[in-house]
Amino acid sequence: MRKFFVLFTAGLILACATHAQQSSTDKYVIVIHGGAGTILRSSMTPQKEKAYRDGLQQALEAAYAKWKAGAPGLDAVEAAIKVLEDNPLFNAGKGAVFTHDGKNELDASIMNGKTLQAGAVAGVTTIKHPISAARAVMEKSQHVMMAGRGAEQFAKEAGLEIVDPSYFRTEERWKGLQHALKQDSLKAAHKVDNKFGTVGCVVLDKTGALAAGTSTGGMTNKKYGRIGDSPIIGAGTYANGTVGVSCTGWGEFFIRSVVAYDLAAMMEYKGLSVEEAGKAVIEKLGRLGGDGGLIALDKNGHMTMPFNTAGMYRAAMTSEGKIEMYIYND
Amino acid sequence: MRKFFVLFTAGLILACATHAQQSSTDKYVIVIHGGAGTILRSSMTPQKEKAYRDGLQQALEAAYAKWKAGAPGLDAVEAAIKVLEDNPLFNAGKGAVFTHDGKNELDASIMNGKTLQAGAVAGVTTIKHPISAARAVMEKSQHVMMAGRGAEQFAKEAGLEIVDPSYFRTEERWKGLQHALKQDSLKAAHKVDNKFGTVGCVVLDKTGALAAGTSTGGMTNKKYGRIGDSPIIGAGTYANGTVGVSCTGWGEFFIRSVVAYDLAAMMEYKGLSVEEAGKAVIEKLGRLGGDGGLIALDKNGHMTMPFNTAGMYRAAMTSEGKIEMYIYND
Repeated sequence: MRKFFVLFTAGLILACATHAQQSSTDKYVIVIHGGAGTILRSSMTPQKEKAYRDGLQQALEAAYAKWKAGAPGLDAVEAAIKVLEDNPLFNAGKGAVFTHDGKNELDASIMNGKTLQAGAVAGVTTIKHPISAARAVMEKSQHVMMAGRGAEQFAKEAGLEIVDPSYFRTEERWKGLQHALKQDSLKAAHKVDNKFGTVGCVVLDKTGALAAGTSTGGMTNKKYGRIGDSPIIGAGTYANGTVGVSCTGWGEFFIRSVVAYDLAAMMEYKGLSVEEAGKAVIEKLGRLGGDGGLIALDKNGHMTMPFNTAGMYRAAMTSEGKIEMYIYND
Repeated sequence: MRKFFVLFTAGLILACATHAQQSSTDKYVIVIHGGAGTILRSSMTPQKEKAYRDGLQQALEAAYAKWKAGAPGLDAVEAAIKVLEDNPLFNAGKGAVFTHDGKNELDASIMNGKTLQAGAVAGVTTIKHPISAARAVMEKSQHVMMAGRGAEQFAKEAGLEIVDPSYFRTEERWKGLQHALKQDSLKAAHKVDNKFGTVGCVVLDKTGALAAGTSTGGMTNKKYGRIGDSPIIGAGTYANGTVGVSCTGWGEFFIRSVVAYDLAAMMEYKGLSVEEAGKAVIEKLGRLGGDGGLIALDKNGHMTMPFNTAGMYRAAMTSEGKIEMYIYND
């Protein structure tokens, strides 16, 4: 049975259990991830680990401030993901991985579980916060998904912050691309640089409504305008009245498996719990040859964070402000 | 109860029943659609109706030639859709509708139900047969979805036929855009020019494997690099070992409802028949405010072609070569 790594952070007592359970009066209201992949304790420095944890905690706190104020779940999702997009450690916004052509092409999506409204952008290079662009597509257009320059034009007209494409560049990601180019194979790149670092968040707001969002730079060395699962409603992101889901991993397999919606369908049509459905979809993904993980939070405040990689940056917060945070799969 | 319009075509006796049923030894092996929308008998000329029917029949025959020869279902799907892409009457390939900026931006996807492999292209303007590009993405790349110029570059490298963007232009579609621009509202454009004409095909090949594909020019007057449901695996297209599905309609609602995969999930998780699941997903779509239709064919050769618009160009062929073809909802 999986044992979670336990983090003690100032003023917060963290649950120590193979499957953390909240008390009967408390429930999870925010769940986030910062990507799944080959995250090994053996290759992590204490400084780096602390930086990741600090990043996750800042994201949780940004979301919790919105949650506590009674804001819509979408506000909390957007707030958490913006923090992670701004953090160069994660493969979203600043610090995104590079395409084969040396660009940072960003994808994001968001969904309102109450109304089933959704928005997404794909392949954008100048929008500082792709998650905010996805939300603008949802709320200020009649479309669900926009790509490339058209999406950038829309974001600009919607008043979002536009940056020079060089804003997203970090030296570490550039080195990652150079390494991948040497391998000259996407699969090799996947093996080598697969701390994907896609970020996501699911929130259950005070009205009982669920919202979910995902943001990513995609896969190092991706070519030909590749779009992964993160901006695909049903694959990388989904929310309805029952559950909210955000995925991270090898996007092609998540698209083919329609992972996020499959989890919701298993809950609705088969009566599985969120934990059972999460386990089942990751097992299906694995049988197809895919790897990655997801976070899911249901309408009752139950959550799950399954993955089949070595690790996944992940954390959750209860309505009473308790934080749980995990990195490894041990 | 719905009554189907019956077409008598040279040498073919067509079924005349409220719900057509094949004999116990015969089964449906090819189903196609040419789009759902406001297709009214009152606004159709006999010549135009014949042209649509001829187009559907040519597509069926192209697929059936492959099917009869024992080719993989994917070959038959691609063959049918290429015929429809070449036909200016349908909103796919030549004859695609125009974007707000006066371009023809094409989307397509294809899925192999046996392997769950999938491929898609979005927003391409120079690939003569987007369905073939989707198949090339599936079979010749490690990606599932490519967009814009990247997808075009890939298609060129894969040896597909590249054309000048002007190839796709037809006068009727150009007039449709001018009309929509006057309305200056996408919703109005949707109301005015909503014979969407997206095309799709599902095939059950002789080995029992299912394949599905969809191709479209999207929505007249679409803006900002909009991507609809047609290139989204799970929304516009899906196939597995149980069922193959291709959708047509107001794409944003199909994405939000994950329609194609939802039908498959209802069959697998709830034990619904293909007809029950088809009816249920179109009813769900309607409750959300969306309109359109779909074709679905299961592993046993049972099919359904539900829609909630005034009409849908649709046809099916059995293993013995019998054709059924319908246009209206009366």
